[in-house]
Amino acid sequence: MKSVLGATMASGLAHSAEPGGRKLGWALVGLGNLSTHQIAPALLKTKHARLAAVVTGTPEKGVAWRGKYGLTAEQIYDYGNFDKIANDPAVDVVCVVLPNSMHHEFTIRAAKAGKHVYCEKPMAVSAKECREMIVACEAAKVKLGVAYRCQFEPHHKEAMRFSREKVFGDLRHIDAGFGFKSGDPKQWRLRAALAGGGALMDVGIYALQACRYLTGEEPAEITAVETKIDKVKFAEVDETIQWAMKFPSGKTANCLTTYSFNGCNHFTAFCEKGRFGLNQAYGYGGQSGWTSDEKIPLEHPHTDHFAEQMDIFSQAILQQRNFGPSGHEGLKDLLVIEAIYRSIKTGKAQAVEAI
Amino acid sequence: MKSVLGATMASGLAHSAEPGGRKLGWALVGLGNLSTHQIAPALLKTKHARLAAVVTGTPEKGVAWRGKYGLTAEQIYDYGNFDKIANDPAVDVVCVVLPNSMHHEFTIRAAKAGKHVYCEKPMAVSAKECREMIVACEAAKVKLGVAYRCQFEPHHKEAMRFSREKVFGDLRHIDAGFGFKSGDPKQWRLRAALAGGGALMDVGIYALQACRYLTGEEPAEITAVETKIDKVKFAEVDETIQWAMKFPSGKTANCLTTYSFNGCNHFTAFCEKGRFGLNQAYGYGGQSGWTSDEKIPLEHPHTDHFAEQMDIFSQAILQQRNFGPSGHEGLKDLLVIEAIYRSIKTGKAQAVEAI
Repeated sequence: MKSVLGATMASGLAHSAEPGGRKLGWALVGLGNLSTHQIAPALLKTKHARLAAVVTGTPEKGVAWRGKYGLTAEQIYDYGNFDKIANDPAVDVVCVVLPNSMHHEFTIRAAKAGKHVYCEKPMAVSAKECREMIVACEAAKVKLGVAYRCQFEPHHKEAMRFSREKVFGDLRHIDAGFGFKSGDPKQWRLRAALAGGGALMDVGIYALQACRYLTGEEPAEITAVETKIDKVKFAEVDETIQWAMKFPSGKTANCLTTYSFNGCNHFTAFCEKGRFGLNQAYGYGGQSGWTSDEKIPLEHPHTDHFAEQMDIFSQAILQQRNFGPSGHEGLKDLLVIEAIYRSIKTGKAQAVEAI
Repeated sequence: MKSVLGATMASGLAHSAEPGGRKLGWALVGLGNLSTHQIAPALLKTKHARLAAVVTGTPEKGVAWRGKYGLTAEQIYDYGNFDKIANDPAVDVVCVVLPNSMHHEFTIRAAKAGKHVYCEKPMAVSAKECREMIVACEAAKVKLGVAYRCQFEPHHKEAMRFSREKVFGDLRHIDAGFGFKSGDPKQWRLRAALAGGGALMDVGIYALQACRYLTGEEPAEITAVETKIDKVKFAEVDETIQWAMKFPSGKTANCLTTYSFNGCNHFTAFCEKGRFGLNQAYGYGGQSGWTSDEKIPLEHPHTDHFAEQMDIFSQAILQQRNFGPSGHEGLKDLLVIEAIYRSIKTGKAQAVEAI
């Protein structure tokens, strides 16, 4: 296991003598849609990150990626030989883009290989797993970031500022929701063993995140109910969940997540002197903001969310700064998600377990 | 007790020989803000209704109203001699604009006096009271209407059509809320004995109504939580309530009501192919509609909600047609409201009692 500085320097020496000036090498673990269509293309735009390796269980994908991204045979790992990545100084960061239930294993293996870890959301399928991942990364002295791309997106950042600086007065209530109509019934997202949960784990987490970073508080009490219309397709995971959150200050939030229909993708923040919100709030394709005061717009140019977050994580490593959202942020969401599932199971309001 | 026809003809003869052509006489019971600033001025605009009497416990108000509306001394009743209104053929309709806990008594007394009843919302403070009011009006063969003015408002009617005709596809979820910052701590609305409840009874009922008439369904299951910040001011009644509703078809709704802050006054309907909603949804001052398709606007001229509903109730009497929203509509809301309070009290999801 290497120190943060050690890891940086070891690979840094292979590429550049100027700390902060070089691009960190990222290894993508899992070559599904997100890696293929978002993350790898974004790595062609990043200033501080570049694709240095891929890890896949499908040899044909490795061949295709070698051709497309100019990788060598040695830069293609599989899940069996993944741990050899410890010996590749060109890899600084392991980016975990696997089904949710595999985040825990590969984050810990990456940490043991001395690599920083950038993990897709949800961080894991339980708070217990999150805690083990945090401990492993701390022990290995590597950074652990969770891919909450909206936290770096200009509309969301501006909305956080509106709340923090009370631009529309005190924020009092949030309506938030994210859902879409789930397609292929054979996809891993519908298998509990791989996904750990359904719409809530996959997209509801964005609405939860928004409520947490807009209020600046951790929810104190959760009440949740589930609706399941298609009991075959969603036999293993949640289809639609409504949940209410009460925050310590008295702020409140009502949330929805669904795999059952398109078009719910928003937050609305009700403040004492006005309102603001986003539509298409959580997608990659560009946010649409509004406020109750036309003199205070919520409009920004579209950014590449993936390039942005990878550059910021890379810079934090290069500059030896703390990075957030860290593993603790991922853990906090899992603690709320577990309270939501407990509330559904028990039919009662649930406190959120302390971090 | 008179039949509907008898009542119409008895008073009709006093004013006009043409059924349907004359204005019905309305007696306002309770001369608070709503009667003073909304209902009485609206009765100067109505085509089928006119002010025929007032009932007040404050003699000075009687004097002032005589001067302002040209009423005679005989047209000013008090709560003690109210039942003599049975002998006034100029009064066709008794409009109950009293504190909530008095709706039951005065609706039943009005019915016994042979007068049709138009009752402010909430219809009463319990479902039991609503049932007794319905029975009394049926026994007296008088009509009982509940003042759900939004049901006649063009934006709301258009929104109902959007849902019913699936203009944006199937409606799947609603976010709705209505609240305001409650003022005078001495007002009757904060006294449980008079109001029967707080924000939920007073304004949350509008959001509940919207969810019921937009879905066209009765909620099957309710989950609710309460937040109370000012435990002195709101010692007797609810300050803020969040509630979730599950409808039989699988539709869902998340609602908020509050006496704690201004600006939450909306519904948003999420449909499978688009969205629509209203801001300033429930106020008298004009609605602000929007949809996700600029080619299908939700815009209408402002109407006088009070004049509109009184004319429609009057026409139903004159033309001997059924009127809705009737007492059954008021009862249905109270059944949901009782489930909301039960859910808060028990901390568990509650079924809504059958009508």
